[in-house]
Amino acid sequence: MLTVHHLGRSQSERIVWLCEELGIDYELKCYKRRTDNKMAPPEYKKLHPLGAAPVITDGDLVLGESGSIIEYLVAVYGCGRMTIKPEAPGYTDYLYWLHFANGTFQPLLLRMLSLERVDASDNNAPLTMAKERIQLMLSMMEKKLGESDYLAGDTLSAADIMIIFSLTTMRLFKPYNLSQCPNILAYLQRIGARPAYQRAMQKAEPGLIPVLGAESSVTVF
Amino acid sequence: MLTVHHLGRSQSERIVWLCEELGIDYELKCYKRRTDNKMAPPEYKKLHPLGAAPVITDGDLVLGESGSIIEYLVAVYGCGRMTIKPEAPGYTDYLYWLHFANGTFQPLLLRMLSLERVDASDNNAPLTMAKERIQLMLSMMEKKLGESDYLAGDTLSAADIMIIFSLTTMRLFKPYNLSQCPNILAYLQRIGARPAYQRAMQKAEPGLIPVLGAESSVTVF
Repeated sequence: MLTVHHLGRSQSERIVWLCEELGIDYELKCYKRRTDNKMAPPEYKKLHPLGAAPVITDGDLVLGESGSIIEYLVAVYGCGRMTIKPEAPGYTDYLYWLHFANGTFQPLLLRMLSLERVDASDNNAPLTMAKERIQLMLSMMEKKLGESDYLAGDTLSAADIMIIFSLTTMRLFKPYNLSQCPNILAYLQRIGARPAYQRAMQKAEPGLIPVLGAESSVTVF
Repeated sequence: MLTVHHLGRSQSERIVWLCEELGIDYELKCYKRRTDNKMAPPEYKKLHPLGAAPVITDGDLVLGESGSIIEYLVAVYGCGRMTIKPEAPGYTDYLYWLHFANGTFQPLLLRMLSLERVDASDNNAPLTMAKERIQLMLSMMEKKLGESDYLAGDTLSAADIMIIFSLTTMRLFKPYNLSQCPNILAYLQRIGARPAYQRAMQKAEPGLIPVLGAESSVTVF
């Protein structure tokens, strides 16, 4: 049976959400972060050699990495739903944002988090540069979401599943303000109104109010 | 016509290599880094809103992000060659390493590079943690490459195209030693012996000896 191993406040919330959107029959196992250092507990680290969320198991298969799990689930369980084919409009937007999410945007947020821990001052040149890059990335998303309801057109796709964590729950680790991004804020409201997203967050993160507004503050780390 | 915009010593070498492996008819435009700060020159930054390598243009299309360009080229120009289908052996290995390359491995190298610029001492806890993670990732690759010649089986796939930059040219920015990784070193020799890789590197990086050995040193930054 497909099992989604969800680490609290982590990128694995994407996988729970995708399963709910696709109506997949899956088992959900939830793991809490350690109280001392907020890292994954030993039983989560044992699941996969890298010891990082997300992880799924499916028979003998143990698979990590958000992008690979999402591609696996939409192909094997979803009959290709929530992807966009080469001949369809939005194909290259789909590819771009799918890979941009964890290839560029989320890594830069994680880099900022590390850089701030070492030196949060204005003397930290890589941090200053990263802040400028994040604003550029937000302006790109803001522009795109002024043209269509979702990143690859007017229906939800796996590209949206990939990016939403970085725009929501990630802001509990690395807050940034979206008040200058009305299109992104409207997008987050559309996501938050989806029954599958609501079910996923209630199952994966009971007690957490999804971070869908302009402001956020650190509650993890 | 498909044009690959290659920034010297950058992730866009992957795209040149893929075009050579697939035998695609393409135009190559090469751009040199600025001499003052080693960043992309203004004409490269103008190609795409993010201003980062790689970028391709194809008619009206302007596409960035390594993963999306590679998926586009194998689907539209490669008839799916160099990918592995869901029903074939190696499918989930293919997905894992394809997304791991720029979703986990390359971002951690970039994070280390930034952290070292701020504080290269042992007091830099995020840097110490990152170094441990890199060793773990190398040990995962080392194990995998003891089981098969390439990451997803015994033939080259797009997953290898994605990861090789981080194991080679990236070490001119962020050196790390591979002397404890004989399987990775043998893999790099296999890659270096491929005519398409040799053609790509000669066209994209004339004068650069590909970084295929255990040792490397900083030559960029």
